[in-house]
Amino acid sequence: MGFFDDLATRIDATNSVVSVGLDPDPGRLPDFIDADLPRWAFNRRVIDATNEHAACYKPNAAFYEDADGWRALRETIAYAHGKDIPVLLDAKRADIGNTARQYARVLEEVDAITVNPYLGEDAIRPFLNHDGAGVFVLARTSNPGARDFQNLTVGNDTKLYEYVARRAAEWDDGNVGLVVGATASEELAAVRELAPKLPFLVPGVGAQGGDAEAAIAHGLADGVGLVNSSRGIIFAGEDSEDGDAYFRAVGAAARRLKSQLNEHR
Amino acid sequence: MGFFDDLATRIDATNSVVSVGLDPDPGRLPDFIDADLPRWAFNRRVIDATNEHAACYKPNAAFYEDADGWRALRETIAYAHGKDIPVLLDAKRADIGNTARQYARVLEEVDAITVNPYLGEDAIRPFLNHDGAGVFVLARTSNPGARDFQNLTVGNDTKLYEYVARRAAEWDDGNVGLVVGATASEELAAVRELAPKLPFLVPGVGAQGGDAEAAIAHGLADGVGLVNSSRGIIFAGEDSEDGDAYFRAVGAAARRLKSQLNEHR
Repeated sequence: MGFFDDLATRIDATNSVVSVGLDPDPGRLPDFIDADLPRWAFNRRVIDATNEHAACYKPNAAFYEDADGWRALRETIAYAHGKDIPVLLDAKRADIGNTARQYARVLEEVDAITVNPYLGEDAIRPFLNHDGAGVFVLARTSNPGARDFQNLTVGNDTKLYEYVARRAAEWDDGNVGLVVGATASEELAAVRELAPKLPFLVPGVGAQGGDAEAAIAHGLADGVGLVNSSRGIIFAGEDSEDGDAYFRAVGAAARRLKSQLNEHR
Repeated sequence: MGFFDDLATRIDATNSVVSVGLDPDPGRLPDFIDADLPRWAFNRRVIDATNEHAACYKPNAAFYEDADGWRALRETIAYAHGKDIPVLLDAKRADIGNTARQYARVLEEVDAITVNPYLGEDAIRPFLNHDGAGVFVLARTSNPGARDFQNLTVGNDTKLYEYVARRAAEWDDGNVGLVVGATASEELAAVRELAPKLPFLVPGVGAQGGDAEAAIAHGLADGVGLVNSSRGIIFAGEDSEDGDAYFRAVGAAARRLKSQLNEHR
Protein backbone atom coordinates (compact mmCIF):
# COMPACT_ATOMS: atom_id res chain seq x y z
CA MET A 1 0.00 0.00 0.00
CA GLY A 2 1.32 3.41 -0.94
CA PHE A 3 0.55 6.85 0.40
CA PHE A 4 -2.32 7.56 -1.98
CA ASP A 5 -4.04 4.27 -1.13
CA ASP A 6 -3.76 5.09 2.56
CA LEU A 7 -5.03 8.58 1.87
CA ALA A 8 -8.03 7.25 -0.06
CA THR A 9 -8.89 5.01 2.89
CA ARG A 10 -8.56 7.92 5.27
CA ILE A 11 -10.69 10.22 3.07
CA ASP A 12 -13.44 7.58 3.08
CA ALA A 13 -13.21 7.05 6.84
CA THR A 14 -13.44 10.75 7.72
CA ASN A 15 -15.53 11.87 4.75
CA SER A 16 -13.00 14.67 4.49
CA VAL A 17 -10.32 15.94 2.11
CA VAL A 18 -9.06 18.50 4.62
CA SER A 19 -5.32 18.75 5.18
CA VAL A 20 -4.59 20.53 8.45
CA GLY A 21 -1.39 22.53 8.19
CA LEU A 22 0.64 22.33 11.39
CA ASP A 23 2.57 25.62 11.24
CA PRO A 24 3.12 26.51 14.91
CA ASP A 25 4.49 30.01 14.39
CA PRO A 26 6.28 30.74 17.71
CA GLY A 27 4.97 34.31 17.68
CA ARG A 28 1.36 33.14 17.54
CA LEU A 29 1.29 30.27 20.03
CA PRO A 30 -1.26 30.99 22.79
CA ASP A 31 0.13 32.02 26.18
CA PHE A 32 -1.41 29.09 28.02
CA ILE A 33 0.81 26.66 26.09
CA ASP A 34 3.55 26.21 28.65
CA ALA A 35 5.64 23.12 28.05
CA ASP A 36 9.14 21.84 27.38
CA LEU A 37 8.31 21.60 23.68
CA PRO A 38 5.59 24.19 23.10
CA ARG A 39 5.22 23.39 19.40
CA TRP A 40 4.56 19.74 20.21
CA ALA A 41 2.18 20.61 23.07
CA PHE A 42 0.27 22.90 20.72
CA ASN A 43 0.19 20.43 17.83
CA ARG A 44 -1.02 17.66 20.11
CA ARG A 45 -4.03 19.71 21.15
CA VAL A 46 -4.66 20.72 17.53
CA ILE A 47 -4.64 17.05 16.56
CA ASP A 48 -6.95 16.18 19.44
CA ALA A 49 -9.37 18.89 18.31
CA THR A 50 -9.30 18.22 14.58
CA ASN A 51 -8.50 14.57 13.93
CA GLU A 52 -12.00 13.45 13.01
CA HIS A 53 -12.02 16.05 10.21
CA ALA A 54 -8.43 15.59 9.03
CA ALA A 55 -7.53 13.49 6.00
CA CYS A 56 -3.93 14.27 6.80
CA TYR A 57 -1.65 16.59 8.74
CA LYS A 58 0.79 18.80 6.91
CA PRO A 59 3.57 20.25 9.08
CA ASN A 60 5.62 22.85 7.23
CA ALA A 61 9.33 22.22 7.86
CA ALA A 62 10.04 25.96 8.26
CA PHE A 63 8.52 25.87 11.74
CA TYR A 64 10.74 23.05 13.01
CA GLU A 65 14.23 24.10 11.91
CA ASP A 66 16.11 23.90 15.19
CA ALA A 67 16.95 21.16 17.69
CA ASP A 68 13.74 21.46 19.74
CA GLY A 69 11.80 21.89 16.53
CA TRP A 70 12.85 18.54 15.16
CA ARG A 71 12.00 16.91 18.49
CA ALA A 72 8.58 18.57 18.39
CA LEU A 73 8.09 17.42 14.79
CA ARG A 74 8.94 13.80 15.61
CA GLU A 75 6.49 13.73 18.52
CA THR A 76 3.84 15.28 16.30
CA ILE A 77 4.38 12.68 13.57
CA ALA A 78 4.24 9.84 16.08
CA TYR A 79 1.04 11.18 17.62
CA ALA A 80 -0.68 11.54 14.24
CA HIS A 81 0.48 8.05 13.29
CA GLY A 82 -0.88 6.80 16.62
CA LYS A 83 -4.28 7.91 15.33
CA ASP A 84 -3.61 6.33 11.90
CA ILE A 85 -3.48 9.67 10.15
CA PRO A 86 -0.98 10.18 7.33
CA VAL A 87 1.60 12.97 7.65
CA LEU A 88 2.74 15.06 4.67
CA LEU A 89 5.86 17.12 5.29
CA ASP A 90 5.66 20.42 3.44
CA ALA A 91 9.37 20.85 2.84
CA LYS A 92 9.56 22.01 -0.80
CA ARG A 93 12.92 20.29 -0.98
CA ALA A 94 15.18 19.52 -3.90
CA ASP A 95 18.93 19.17 -4.10
CA ILE A 96 21.48 17.25 -6.10
CA GLY A 97 23.05 13.81 -5.87
CA ASN A 98 23.98 12.63 -2.40
CA THR A 99 22.28 15.66 -0.88
CA ALA A 100 18.91 14.82 -2.38
CA ARG A 101 19.30 11.27 -1.12
CA GLN A 102 19.97 12.65 2.35
CA TYR A 103 16.87 14.86 2.26
CA ALA A 104 14.78 11.90 1.08
CA ARG A 105 15.59 9.97 4.24
CA VAL A 106 12.93 11.99 6.05
CA LEU A 107 10.47 9.74 4.19
CA GLU A 108 11.39 7.04 6.69
CA GLU A 109 9.41 9.15 9.16
CA VAL A 110 6.68 10.90 7.19
CA ASP A 111 4.38 9.46 4.53
CA ALA A 112 4.66 12.14 1.87
CA ILE A 113 6.56 15.30 1.03
CA THR A 114 6.41 18.37 -1.20
CA VAL A 115 9.31 18.96 -3.61
CA ASN A 116 10.47 21.85 -5.80
CA PRO A 117 11.02 21.00 -9.49
CA TYR A 118 13.56 23.72 -10.43
CA LEU A 119 16.60 21.42 -10.21
CA GLY A 120 15.07 18.79 -12.48
CA GLU A 121 14.19 15.13 -12.31
CA ASP A 122 17.39 13.78 -10.76
CA ALA A 123 16.94 16.10 -7.78
CA ILE A 124 13.51 14.57 -7.14
CA ARG A 125 14.29 10.98 -8.06
CA PRO A 126 15.44 9.91 -4.53
CA PHE A 127 12.03 10.99 -3.20
CA LEU A 128 10.19 9.22 -6.03
CA ASN A 129 12.18 6.06 -5.43
CA HIS A 130 11.23 5.87 -1.76
CA ASP A 131 8.93 2.90 -1.52
CA GLY A 132 5.36 3.81 -0.64
CA ALA A 133 5.94 7.53 -0.21
CA GLY A 134 3.81 10.23 -1.81
CA VAL A 135 5.62 13.06 -3.62
CA PHE A 136 3.80 16.32 -4.37
CA VAL A 137 5.63 18.37 -7.00
CA LEU A 138 5.14 22.15 -6.88
CA ALA A 139 3.44 23.17 -10.12
CA ARG A 140 1.52 26.45 -9.58
CA THR A 141 1.88 27.84 -6.07
CA SER A 142 -0.67 30.09 -4.34
CA ASN A 143 1.48 33.20 -3.76
CA PRO A 144 1.39 36.36 -5.90
CA GLY A 145 5.02 35.84 -7.01
CA ALA A 146 4.11 32.46 -8.49
CA ARG A 147 3.63 34.36 -11.77
CA ASP A 148 7.25 35.52 -11.88
CA PHE A 149 8.61 32.26 -13.28
CA GLN A 150 5.86 29.60 -13.19
CA ASN A 151 3.72 31.50 -15.69
CA LEU A 152 6.48 32.04 -18.25
CA THR A 153 5.71 30.57 -21.66
CA VAL A 154 8.16 27.79 -22.45
CA GLY A 155 7.07 27.14 -26.02
CA ASN A 156 3.88 26.23 -27.91
CA ASP A 157 1.60 28.19 -25.63
CA THR A 158 2.68 26.11 -22.64
CA LYS A 159 3.34 27.75 -19.27
CA LEU A 160 6.22 26.54 -17.14
CA TYR A 161 3.83 25.23 -14.46
CA GLU A 162 1.95 23.28 -17.15
CA TYR A 163 5.17 21.83 -18.48
CA VAL A 164 6.19 20.85 -14.95
CA ALA A 165 2.81 19.19 -14.43
CA ARG A 166 3.20 17.18 -17.65
CA ARG A 167 6.68 16.03 -16.67
CA ALA A 168 5.51 15.10 -13.17
CA ALA A 169 2.72 13.03 -14.72
CA GLU A 170 5.38 11.13 -16.67
CA TRP A 171 7.27 10.40 -13.45
CA ASP A 172 4.15 9.08 -11.78
CA ASP A 173 4.04 5.47 -10.70
CA GLY A 174 1.00 5.89 -8.46
CA ASN A 175 3.08 8.03 -6.09
CA VAL A 176 3.04 11.55 -7.57
CA GLY A 177 0.76 14.46 -6.74
CA LEU A 178 0.89 18.15 -7.64
CA VAL A 179 0.71 21.33 -5.60
CA VAL A 180 -1.66 23.77 -7.32
CA GLY A 181 -2.93 26.80 -5.43
CA ALA A 182 -6.62 27.55 -4.95
CA THR A 183 -5.86 31.22 -5.56
CA ALA A 184 -5.46 30.46 -9.27
CA SER A 185 -8.71 28.76 -10.36
CA GLU A 186 -8.03 28.85 -14.08
CA GLU A 187 -4.61 27.37 -13.54
CA LEU A 188 -6.18 24.60 -11.43
CA ALA A 189 -8.43 23.67 -14.34
CA ALA A 190 -5.57 23.83 -16.84
CA VAL A 191 -3.34 21.57 -14.76
CA ARG A 192 -6.16 19.08 -14.21
CA GLU A 193 -6.49 18.65 -17.96
CA LEU A 194 -2.77 18.00 -18.34
CA ALA A 195 -2.51 15.58 -15.43
CA PRO A 196 -5.90 13.87 -15.19
CA LYS A 197 -4.75 11.12 -12.83
CA LEU A 198 -2.68 13.02 -10.25
CA PRO A 199 -4.14 14.00 -6.87
CA PHE A 200 -3.55 17.66 -6.04
CA LEU A 201 -2.60 19.30 -2.79
CA VAL A 202 -4.46 22.60 -2.96
CA PRO A 203 -3.25 25.28 -0.55
CA GLY A 204 -4.60 28.77 -0.19
CA VAL A 205 -8.26 28.12 0.67
CA GLY A 206 -8.15 29.51 4.22
CA ALA A 207 -6.18 32.62 5.18
CA GLN A 208 -5.23 33.20 1.53
CA GLY A 209 -8.86 33.37 0.34
CA GLY A 210 -8.76 30.82 -2.47
CA ASP A 211 -11.75 29.24 -4.23
CA ALA A 212 -13.09 26.15 -2.40
CA GLU A 213 -15.41 25.10 -5.25
CA ALA A 214 -12.59 25.13 -7.80
CA ALA A 215 -10.32 23.30 -5.36
CA ILE A 216 -12.80 20.41 -5.21
CA ALA A 217 -13.82 20.54 -8.87
CA HIS A 218 -10.24 20.23 -10.09
CA GLY A 219 -8.18 19.06 -7.11
CA LEU A 220 -9.44 15.49 -6.80
CA ALA A 221 -8.44 12.54 -8.97
CA ASP A 222 -10.81 9.62 -8.54
CA GLY A 223 -11.93 11.33 -5.32
CA VAL A 224 -8.41 11.59 -3.90
CA GLY A 225 -6.72 14.89 -3.15
CA LEU A 226 -6.21 17.38 -0.34
CA VAL A 227 -7.30 20.91 0.36
CA ASN A 228 -5.11 22.50 2.98
CA SER A 229 -5.70 25.19 5.54
CA SER A 230 -3.07 26.05 8.12
CA ARG A 231 -3.51 29.36 9.96
CA GLY A 232 -7.25 29.38 9.19
CA ILE A 233 -7.61 26.29 11.37
CA ILE A 234 -4.85 26.19 13.97
CA PHE A 235 -5.15 29.84 15.02
CA ALA A 236 -8.97 29.94 14.80
CA GLY A 237 -9.11 30.12 18.61
CA GLU A 238 -7.11 33.32 18.97
CA ASP A 239 -9.99 35.32 20.46
CA SER A 240 -10.85 32.64 23.03
CA GLU A 241 -10.78 33.14 26.79
CA ASP A 242 -9.11 29.87 27.70
CA GLY A 243 -7.51 26.77 26.27
CA ASP A 244 -10.66 24.69 26.06
CA ALA A 245 -12.44 27.43 24.12
CA TYR A 246 -9.36 27.92 21.94
CA PHE A 247 -9.27 24.33 20.77
CA ARG A 248 -13.06 24.10 20.45
CA ALA A 249 -12.70 26.92 17.93
CA VAL A 250 -9.87 25.06 16.20
CA GLY A 251 -11.98 21.92 15.91
CA ALA A 252 -14.94 23.94 14.65
CA ALA A 253 -12.80 25.56 11.96
CA ALA A 254 -11.69 22.17 10.67
CA ARG A 255 -15.28 20.90 10.70
CA ARG A 256 -16.46 24.02 8.86
CA LEU A 257 -13.87 23.62 6.13
CA LYS A 258 -14.78 19.96 5.76
CA SER A 259 -18.47 20.86 5.35
CA GLN A 260 -17.72 23.70 2.98
CA LEU A 261 -15.66 21.40 0.77
CA ASN A 262 -18.14 18.53 1.00
CA GLU A 263 -20.86 20.76 -0.50
CA HIS A 264 -18.89 20.51 -3.74
CA ARG A 265 -17.73 16.88 -3.56
CA MET B 1 29.14 45.81 6.35
CA GLY B 2 27.29 43.13 4.45
CA PHE B 3 28.15 39.55 3.63
CA PHE B 4 29.94 40.32 0.37
CA ASP B 5 32.14 42.95 2.02
CA ASP B 6 33.09 40.46 4.72
CA LEU B 7 33.70 37.85 2.07
CA ALA B 8 35.97 40.20 0.09
CA THR B 9 38.00 40.84 3.24
CA ARG B 10 38.25 37.13 3.91
CA ILE B 11 39.27 36.35 0.30
CA ASP B 12 42.06 38.91 0.60
CA ALA B 13 43.22 37.59 3.98
CA THR B 14 43.40 33.94 2.86
CA ASN B 15 44.21 34.55 -0.80
CA SER B 16 41.49 31.99 -1.47
CA VAL B 17 38.05 31.76 -3.05
CA VAL B 18 37.52 28.21 -1.79
CA SER B 19 34.20 27.39 -0.16
CA VAL B 20 34.49 24.21 1.90
CA GLY B 21 31.23 22.29 1.86
CA LEU B 22 30.47 20.77 5.24
CA ASP B 23 28.32 17.79 4.25
CA PRO B 24 29.01 15.23 6.98
CA ASP B 25 27.23 12.29 5.40
CA PRO B 26 26.65 9.92 8.35
CA GLY B 27 27.53 6.91 6.19
CA ARG B 28 30.96 8.32 5.36
CA LEU B 29 32.16 9.67 8.71
CA PRO B 30 35.42 7.97 9.71
CA ASP B 31 35.21 5.33 12.45
CA PHE B 32 37.56 7.17 14.78
CA ILE B 33 35.05 10.01 15.15
CA ASP B 34 33.41 8.93 18.38
CA ALA B 35 31.52 11.74 20.10
CA ASP B 36 28.15 12.85 21.38
CA LEU B 37 27.66 14.90 18.22
CA PRO B 38 29.77 13.16 15.58
CA ARG B 39 28.90 15.64 12.82
CA TRP B 40 30.13 18.51 14.97
CA ALA B 41 33.27 16.63 16.04
CA PHE B 42 34.02 15.89 12.40
CA ASN B 43 33.31 19.44 11.20
CA ARG B 44 35.49 20.89 13.93
CA ARG B 45 38.45 18.87 12.76
CA VAL B 46 37.72 19.76 9.13
CA ILE B 47 37.70 23.44 10.09
CA ASP B 48 40.93 23.04 12.04
CA ALA B 49 42.54 21.42 9.00
CA THR B 50 41.24 23.77 6.31
CA ASN B 51 40.59 27.22 7.79
CA GLU B 52 43.65 28.93 6.36
CA HIS B 53 42.46 27.97 2.86
CA ALA B 54 38.73 28.62 3.37
CA ALA B 55 37.03 31.82 2.22
CA CYS B 56 33.86 30.43 3.76
CA TYR B 57 32.21 27.26 5.02
CA LYS B 58 29.10 25.97 3.35
CA PRO B 59 27.14 23.42 5.39
CA ASN B 60 24.32 21.83 3.37
CA ALA B 61 21.15 21.75 5.47
CA ALA B 62 20.27 18.24 4.28
CA PHE B 63 22.90 16.79 6.60
CA TYR B 64 21.54 18.45 9.74
CA GLU B 65 17.81 17.77 9.56
CA ASP B 66 17.23 16.21 12.96
CA ALA B 67 17.55 17.34 16.57
CA ASP B 68 21.22 16.41 16.97
CA GLY B 69 21.90 17.72 13.50
CA TRP B 70 20.74 21.22 14.34
CA ARG B 71 22.82 21.13 17.51
CA ALA B 72 25.85 20.05 15.46
CA LEU B 73 25.16 22.79 12.93
CA ARG B 74 24.99 25.50 15.59
CA GLU B 75 28.28 24.40 17.13
CA THR B 76 29.84 24.34 13.68
CA ILE B 77 28.62 27.85 12.88
CA ALA B 78 29.89 29.18 16.22
CA TYR B 79 33.29 27.56 15.70
CA ALA B 80 33.68 29.01 12.21
CA HIS B 81 32.61 32.42 13.48
CA GLY B 82 35.13 32.06 16.31
CA LYS B 83 37.73 32.00 13.55
CA ASP B 84 36.08 34.96 11.76
CA ILE B 85 35.04 32.82 8.81
CA PRO B 86 31.67 33.48 7.15
CA VAL B 87 29.14 30.67 6.97
CA LEU B 88 26.85 30.14 3.98
CA LEU B 89 23.96 27.75 4.60
CA ASP B 90 23.20 25.76 1.47
CA ALA B 91 19.49 25.33 2.07
CA LYS B 92 17.94 26.01 -1.37
CA ARG B 93 14.89 27.30 0.48
CA ALA B 94 11.83 29.15 -0.73
CA ASP B 95 8.30 29.22 0.58
CA ILE B 96 5.40 31.60 0.73
CA GLY B 97 4.34 34.38 3.09
CA ASN B 98 4.78 33.70 6.78
CA THR B 99 6.61 30.46 6.01
CA ALA B 100 9.31 32.22 4.02
CA ARG B 101 9.72 34.71 6.86
CA GLN B 102 10.16 31.80 9.24
CA TYR B 103 12.83 30.18 7.04
CA ALA B 104 14.64 33.51 6.76
CA ARG B 105 15.15 33.63 10.51
CA VAL B 106 18.08 31.25 10.09
CA LEU B 107 19.94 34.33 8.79
CA GLU B 108 20.21 35.43 12.42
CA GLU B 109 22.73 32.57 12.74
CA VAL B 110 24.40 32.23 9.36
CA ASP B 111 25.77 34.95 7.09
CA ALA B 112 24.35 33.85 3.76
CA ILE B 113 21.99 31.30 2.25
CA THR B 114 21.08 29.68 -1.05
CA VAL B 115 17.48 30.04 -2.27
CA ASN B 116 15.37 28.44 -5.01
CA PRO B 117 13.64 30.88 -7.41
CA TYR B 118 10.71 28.70 -8.59
CA LEU B 119 8.17 30.34 -6.26
CA GLY B 120 9.03 33.87 -7.38
CA GLU B 121 10.26 37.06 -5.82
CA ASP B 122 7.93 37.23 -2.81
CA ALA B 123 9.17 33.82 -1.65
CA ILE B 124 12.73 35.17 -1.61
CA ARG B 125 12.01 38.69 -0.38
CA PRO B 126 12.27 37.86 3.39
CA PHE B 127 15.81 36.59 2.76
CA LEU B 128 16.70 39.64 0.66
CA ASN B 129 15.34 41.95 3.35
CA HIS B 130 17.53 40.47 6.06
CA ASP B 131 20.02 43.18 6.85
CA GLY B 132 23.58 42.29 5.91
CA ALA B 133 22.84 38.76 4.69
CA GLY B 134 24.02 37.34 1.38
CA VAL B 135 21.46 35.54 -0.79
CA PHE B 136 22.60 33.20 -3.56
CA VAL B 137 19.79 32.48 -6.03
CA LEU B 138 19.95 29.16 -7.89
CA ALA B 139 20.33 29.95 -11.59
CA ARG B 140 22.00 27.01 -13.35
CA THR B 141 22.75 24.08 -11.06
CA SER B 142 25.52 21.54 -11.59
CA ASN B 143 23.44 18.35 -11.85
CA PRO B 144 22.51 16.58 -15.11
CA GLY B 145 18.78 17.23 -14.50
CA ALA B 146 19.41 20.98 -14.42
CA ARG B 147 18.56 20.91 -18.13
CA ASP B 148 15.03 19.62 -17.53
CA PHE B 149 13.57 23.02 -16.65
CA GLN B 150 16.40 25.55 -16.27
CA ASN B 151 17.38 25.25 -19.95
CA LEU B 152 13.86 25.74 -21.31
CA THR B 153 13.53 28.70 -23.64
CA VAL B 154 11.22 31.30 -22.13
CA GLY B 155 11.06 33.65 -25.07
CA ASN B 156 13.46 35.65 -27.29
CA ASP B 157 16.19 33.05 -27.16
CA THR B 158 16.42 33.36 -23.36
CA LYS B 159 16.81 30.27 -21.21
CA LEU B 160 14.96 30.07 -17.90
CA TYR B 161 18.26 30.16 -15.95
CA GLU B 162 19.26 33.31 -17.85
CA TYR B 163 15.92 34.92 -17.12
CA VAL B 164 16.29 34.02 -13.43
CA ALA B 165 19.78 35.54 -13.42
CA ARG B 166 18.47 38.78 -14.92
CA ARG B 167 15.65 39.02 -12.39
CA ALA B 168 18.06 38.28 -9.52
CA ALA B 169 20.32 41.09 -10.77
CA GLU B 170 17.32 43.42 -10.52
CA TRP B 171 16.75 42.37 -6.91
CA ASP B 172 20.38 43.03 -6.02
CA ASP B 173 21.17 45.69 -3.49
CA GLY B 174 24.74 44.54 -2.92
CA ASN B 175 23.43 41.36 -1.30
CA VAL B 176 22.63 38.98 -4.16
CA GLY B 177 24.78 36.23 -5.66
CA LEU B 178 24.00 33.41 -8.09
CA VAL B 179 24.59 29.68 -8.02
CA VAL B 180 25.99 28.57 -11.38
CA GLY B 181 27.56 25.14 -11.72
CA ALA B 182 31.08 24.58 -12.97
CA THR B 183 29.85 21.59 -14.93
CA ALA B 184 28.26 23.98 -17.45
CA SER B 185 31.08 26.28 -18.64
CA GLU B 186 29.14 27.90 -21.47
CA GLU B 187 26.25 28.64 -19.14
CA LEU B 188 28.72 30.20 -16.68
CA ALA B 189 29.89 32.60 -19.36
CA ALA B 190 26.34 33.39 -20.47
CA VAL B 191 25.19 34.17 -16.94
CA ARG B 192 28.23 36.35 -16.30
CA GLU B 193 27.27 38.53 -19.26
CA LEU B 194 23.74 38.95 -17.96
CA ALA B 195 24.72 39.68 -14.36
CA PRO B 196 28.14 41.37 -14.53
CA LYS B 197 28.12 42.54 -10.92
CA LEU B 198 26.90 39.46 -9.03
CA PRO B 199 29.34 37.15 -7.25
CA PHE B 200 28.75 33.49 -8.10
CA LEU B 201 28.85 30.44 -5.92
CA VAL B 202 30.22 27.81 -8.27
CA PRO B 203 29.68 24.20 -7.16
CA GLY B 204 30.77 21.09 -8.98
CA VAL B 205 34.52 21.57 -9.27
CA GLY B 206 35.54 18.68 -6.99
CA ALA B 207 33.74 15.33 -7.00
CA GLN B 208 31.54 16.46 -9.90
CA GLY B 209 34.48 17.20 -12.21
CA GLY B 210 33.67 20.76 -13.25
CA ASP B 211 35.99 23.24 -14.95
CA ALA B 212 38.18 25.21 -12.49
CA GLU B 213 39.42 27.67 -15.08
CA ALA B 214 35.91 28.61 -16.20
CA ALA B 215 34.80 28.85 -12.58
CA ILE B 216 37.43 31.54 -11.94
CA ALA B 217 37.10 33.25 -15.33
CA HIS B 218 33.36 33.77 -14.93
CA GLY B 219 32.57 33.20 -11.24
CA LEU B 220 34.18 36.29 -9.75
CA ALA B 221 32.78 39.81 -9.77
CA ASP B 222 35.40 42.38 -8.85
CA GLY B 223 37.39 39.47 -7.44
CA VAL B 224 34.58 38.24 -5.20
CA GLY B 225 32.96 34.84 -5.57
CA LEU B 226 33.22 31.28 -4.29
CA VAL B 227 34.18 27.96 -5.78
CA ASN B 228 32.89 25.13 -3.65
CA SER B 229 34.08 21.62 -3.05
CA SER B 230 32.45 19.40 -0.45
CA ARG B 231 33.21 15.69 -0.70
CA GLY B 232 36.43 16.36 -2.62
CA ILE B 233 37.81 18.06 0.49
CA ILE B 234 36.14 16.67 3.59
CA PHE B 235 36.45 13.01 2.62
CA ALA B 236 39.92 13.35 1.07
CA GLY B 237 41.34 11.42 4.03
CA GLU B 238 39.34 8.27 3.48
CA ASP B 239 42.35 6.06 2.75
CA SER B 240 44.28 7.27 5.79
CA GLU B 241 45.50 5.05 8.60
CA ASP B 242 44.57 7.31 11.48
CA GLY B 243 42.84 10.56 12.35
CA ASP B 244 45.91 12.78 12.06
CA ALA B 245 46.64 11.47 8.59
CA TYR B 246 42.96 11.78 7.65
CA PHE B 247 42.80 15.47 8.45
CA ARG B 248 46.24 16.17 6.97
CA ALA B 249 44.78 14.86 3.72
CA VAL B 250 41.69 17.06 4.19
CA GLY B 251 43.85 20.14 4.70
CA ALA B 252 46.00 19.23 1.71
CA ALA B 253 42.92 18.88 -0.51
CA ALA B 254 41.74 22.38 0.44
CA ARG B 255 45.21 23.80 -0.17
CA ARG B 256 45.40 22.04 -3.55
CA LEU B 257 42.06 23.45 -4.68
CA LYS B 258 43.13 26.92 -3.55
CA SER B 259 46.35 26.66 -5.58
CA GLN B 260 44.57 25.23 -8.60
CA LEU B 261 42.07 28.09 -8.57
CA ASN B 262 44.75 30.71 -7.89
CA GLU B 263 46.54 29.71 -11.10
CA HIS B 264 43.62 31.30 -12.92
CA ARG B 265 42.91 34.28 -10.66
